[in-house]
Amino acid sequence: MYKLIIDAMGGDHAPQAIIDGVVMALREYADIFVYLVGKQEVIDHCLQNQEYDKERLEIVDARDEIEMAEPPVKAVRTKKDASMVVGMQMAAEGKGDVFITAGSTGAVVAGGTLIIRRAPQVFRPALAPRLPSAKGGVLLIDCGANIDCKPAFLQQFAIMGSIYMKTVMGIENPRVGLINNGAEEEKGNSLTKEAYQLLKTSDINFVGNAEGRDILSGNYDVVVCDGFVGNVLMKFMEGCATFLFGMIKEELLSSTRTKIGAALAKPAFSDLKKKLDYTEYGGALLLGTNTGVIKAHGSSNAKAIKNAIRQAREFTKMELVEKIKQELTTAQKEIE
Amino acid sequence: MYKLIIDAMGGDHAPQAIIDGVVMALREYADIFVYLVGKQEVIDHCLQNQEYDKERLEIVDARDEIEMAEPPVKAVRTKKDASMVVGMQMAAEGKGDVFITAGSTGAVVAGGTLIIRRAPQVFRPALAPRLPSAKGGVLLIDCGANIDCKPAFLQQFAIMGSIYMKTVMGIENPRVGLINNGAEEEKGNSLTKEAYQLLKTSDINFVGNAEGRDILSGNYDVVVCDGFVGNVLMKFMEGCATFLFGMIKEELLSSTRTKIGAALAKPAFSDLKKKLDYTEYGGALLLGTNTGVIKAHGSSNAKAIKNAIRQAREFTKMELVEKIKQELTTAQKEIE
Repeated sequence: MYKLIIDAMGGDHAPQAIIDGVVMALREYADIFVYLVGKQEVIDHCLQNQEYDKERLEIVDARDEIEMAEPPVKAVRTKKDASMVVGMQMAAEGKGDVFITAGSTGAVVAGGTLIIRRAPQVFRPALAPRLPSAKGGVLLIDCGANIDCKPAFLQQFAIMGSIYMKTVMGIENPRVGLINNGAEEEKGNSLTKEAYQLLKTSDINFVGNAEGRDILSGNYDVVVCDGFVGNVLMKFMEGCATFLFGMIKEELLSSTRTKIGAALAKPAFSDLKKKLDYTEYGGALLLGTNTGVIKAHGSSNAKAIKNAIRQAREFTKMELVEKIKQELTTAQKEIE
Repeated sequence: MYKLIIDAMGGDHAPQAIIDGVVMALREYADIFVYLVGKQEVIDHCLQNQEYDKERLEIVDARDEIEMAEPPVKAVRTKKDASMVVGMQMAAEGKGDVFITAGSTGAVVAGGTLIIRRAPQVFRPALAPRLPSAKGGVLLIDCGANIDCKPAFLQQFAIMGSIYMKTVMGIENPRVGLINNGAEEEKGNSLTKEAYQLLKTSDINFVGNAEGRDILSGNYDVVVCDGFVGNVLMKFMEGCATFLFGMIKEELLSSTRTKIGAALAKPAFSDLKKKLDYTEYGGALLLGTNTGVIKAHGSSNAKAIKNAIRQAREFTKMELVEKIKQELTTAQKEIE
């Protein structure tokens, strides 16, 4: 039985969307047990009239919540009875295999480090979402947990990302790229130049620098950068898509002919939307903590939560956390 | 008469596309004089049978070329007879108002600093392309000239970008955003946190941090970042567009219905392509040098070159270089 600890109160559509997602998952997967953390009476209310296996759900009462705008470190330290803090505390105590929340990213990162804690040998846990690409998808690591990084952090991000893509996504020999301002080895800022040298000697399939235009090309399974660059890139991708679809819509509505064309082409756009839909991709992983952590998108609906649970199940099954610990310990020994 | 020095040999489609663009511009603008720098006989050949005012064109013979893959600083230092070096030397000697090239970006930046030289008070010249946005366009500065930056560099980029958008683009009070990993003042890496404080006290319309998703929103006229982030972002935008259009095409070809829709909607896509076409936007400016420099896109066609010339003409007319020198001197005095 996979034991999942889920924050019922985090996210724009919490608690209903979270609880609906949990119910969907309980029905679909017979091998999961869920601890649902949040206000007992609120959760009870959301569960009313829902059909699921009650033996596999336990509500853990937590009276407080962390708001999106709160300074995360302070919130995690002081709000001892917040659903996220209570859930993470349970994870730290080994009561579950994975902790899932759609709450504040800052609080997830702070709590991951302060409560669940780093796995041995890990310098810094890193946040890693899967982005769509021309061939399947690409893991972007770090996308915002570590704003200022050292070269050795990037090396570990690459190793952890690589293990994830191999273990959970089943990619034989994941191709790792270093996000950089040029393809040539000598390109880069002081951080990426040093990181390049470390990656070259790492026991991963490092295929060199990834320029901006290649990130989504399908030529990489993992792309590595510091959390500042990753955060800006991830949000810029959203901005580019909004901008381009806005422009397309405007152009399509500009004449009767194109309006008719747009109406006929509509199924194509719906399919595309589905392919780009983050809810299909599950959540971002926080890699490098002692227990698995998944940060679902803030605006997660029930399906996104269900998919995050599917993802959590897969990565528990594949013993991702254990494998990261082992490989980083081996890598560390090799350095020493 | 605006005097323009143009590298005939730089770019994927040089020399023909460059020379065709020059001929188009000479016909359209009666107030420009062009020095065309490159191999005399090659240029002569490309000019054959073309109609233009021969009084306003002078060929400057240069026997060498800088290749795209060459280490730029070395190339600029050793290839004294390369068209780019000869042209920049002329610019340094005050023989023209603006130097235009579609050649290697690295060489443009190296030559801008080593040959044309920085304007007084400028820490580092910066490369600034105009990107399309939901409302008109946004100037991205720096997009690759300065990979490792200090906070004061970013402050100057903001001031120079602001002057450009006001002077040349006629925007009253350009809104300047600092590209950052969060909207709040306290967000950022060590560079952007310090830059934020400098920008707050600068005599520009600083409107705060710009998150990735807002860069193209139309809420900013200028967005500032270091050259590493700018380079990755600019190329990532290209990658996102390629990826999205590829996906759209694939979906549109997936059924007969959507194929018919696509055929009807085609004019909309053509119009959109035109709106996103970099050749309409002119080249990237190298701001902060003693003479104006425009770096046209490497794959510039004749129209792109003609538009870069239009841009050069506008910014000479508006005395951009002089204004930057004046304002940075004033800003410097205020600090002292």
